[in-house]
Amino acid sequence: MARYVFGVDVGGTTAKIGLLTESGEKVDFWEIPTRTENNGEYILSDVADAIRSKMKERNIDDSDVVGAGIGVPGAVNIDGNCYQAVNLGWEKVNVVNELHSKLKLPVKAGNDANVAALGEAWKGGGQGYQNMLLVTLGTGVGGGIIIEGKILTGAKGSGGEIGHIHLDDNEYEACGCGNHGCFEQYASATGAVRLAKRILAASDEPSILRDMEFECKDIFDAAKKGDKVACDIAQHYGYYLGKGIAITASVINPEIIVIGGGVSKAGDILFDLLKPSFEKYVFPGCKDAKFALAKLGNDAGVYGAAKMVLY
Amino acid sequence: MARYVFGVDVGGTTAKIGLLTESGEKVDFWEIPTRTENNGEYILSDVADAIRSKMKERNIDDSDVVGAGIGVPGAVNIDGNCYQAVNLGWEKVNVVNELHSKLKLPVKAGNDANVAALGEAWKGGGQGYQNMLLVTLGTGVGGGIIIEGKILTGAKGSGGEIGHIHLDDNEYEACGCGNHGCFEQYASATGAVRLAKRILAASDEPSILRDMEFECKDIFDAAKKGDKVACDIAQHYGYYLGKGIAITASVINPEIIVIGGGVSKAGDILFDLLKPSFEKYVFPGCKDAKFALAKLGNDAGVYGAAKMVLY
Repeated sequence: MARYVFGVDVGGTTAKIGLLTESGEKVDFWEIPTRTENNGEYILSDVADAIRSKMKERNIDDSDVVGAGIGVPGAVNIDGNCYQAVNLGWEKVNVVNELHSKLKLPVKAGNDANVAALGEAWKGGGQGYQNMLLVTLGTGVGGGIIIEGKILTGAKGSGGEIGHIHLDDNEYEACGCGNHGCFEQYASATGAVRLAKRILAASDEPSILRDMEFECKDIFDAAKKGDKVACDIAQHYGYYLGKGIAITASVINPEIIVIGGGVSKAGDILFDLLKPSFEKYVFPGCKDAKFALAKLGNDAGVYGAAKMVLY
Repeated sequence: MARYVFGVDVGGTTAKIGLLTESGEKVDFWEIPTRTENNGEYILSDVADAIRSKMKERNIDDSDVVGAGIGVPGAVNIDGNCYQAVNLGWEKVNVVNELHSKLKLPVKAGNDANVAALGEAWKGGGQGYQNMLLVTLGTGVGGGIIIEGKILTGAKGSGGEIGHIHLDDNEYEACGCGNHGCFEQYASATGAVRLAKRILAASDEPSILRDMEFECKDIFDAAKKGDKVACDIAQHYGYYLGKGIAITASVINPEIIVIGGGVSKAGDILFDLLKPSFEKYVFPGCKDAKFALAKLGNDAGVYGAAKMVLY
């Protein structure tokens, strides 16, 4: 008989929960609200209750369940300690121990970006590869590293948090972290808009971007239509994206690099844009890495959380 | 009864071989010449013969031996394939299969820098830690990454090869690899001398370094004696060393960073020199990493090779 596994991806507003088979088939995915009041003290009980209700509803015994994995928006170390998760109201919480005490099933926990990387490696853009780098391009730049099929957690759960590696010595604006020249200042959606404004201000060349309050998506749309300034912006964006990925890949030598997050909706054009600087900056021994787009969207975290329990 | 393990560190001139107990006690360490003639085709037979002779000499049965690990000066992937080892004359060689066919004992293989990192994590500067970065400062800059007690090999065995990550956008001299601004251009022994010559040429300030054909060691010796120009050079050196380590540490979040290679003989002064830029550039979640000097010197590779068999 097929055994089951639960995957949970806790966000600041809702927690996505998935019931999957051991082989990763989707049985039931649903959401519950994330109650952040009282320093988020109800979150893990709510998750445990939701899983227990689902087991009752579907007549699933404890012995049919391998366990539950959970991803949270904060650094989680190998022992399950989350030192802080601002969006949940948590100070130090041992996620594994607390969820286990309520759920009475085996539990694994990880950082949400790392867990999403594991999901993409299992069933998404990195399927079939054991060594993967996920780069998530959203409001910021996040990431996750999979080594021999497992999350690279690091000392305190900050493995793969590559948004603040230093990329440019000549940057004059400060990053949110206080440094100058972080990966995230260029390769996030916000970073793309910042680069665009800078390039637009430096010339009078006509561009459809001049007539609108544009977002990151509009830049790539304009570039695809052949807008010259937008193409120039996209190339600058690709330069930084390729450089940041090259440096990261030179450290860990991944088989495949998967690009996710909102900006990845721009599609394959990103690979053309990033490859010249990737190839320039990457260590030759790491040059053969494949590139792919993330495939699981918002479900990546649920898949990855489930997969953690199956290590 | 104690079981044994063999560790082999193959260099271009000699191969160091160690017989150790499972718990890592040194029983017998010796060297054999590395015969590089005929594309190095005798190297692995010579190693197998040396191990077999030692077993005979000491009356050790096959059943008393866990296996033999071997580190070689080239990238080795997870399957034991070494794609090239110039100093041994090797083109593609499957080190695990070839040594196993001759030795008839379990074999593991890895890149020598990665294997040395494992040795330092087991019995050297990183003892007691599961997540370690080794940075080797010699003629070049090498490295090795240990994650949860195991080598981060990567897709093709180039994990931890950090000597060519990009560190400076304003470098005008080319690195041996053709790029500009690689870690190795600054933080290797050669890089330190290059920085020194540049700084000496930029002023007329007196320095004992002006009266000699100096090497890297002389720079740190002069700085320790209070030579002002040498102190300035050492600070520039530390800036780059700290920056390169910060970027690498931000990717993998190590518990401890161990510094080895010839330059590490400068001692604890290196930590004082690198820390300001390490702390400036590192991702805050990775700031708590400890620092230590490598302890095993040329034996690190033998210890690490042995440890691979004990995973």
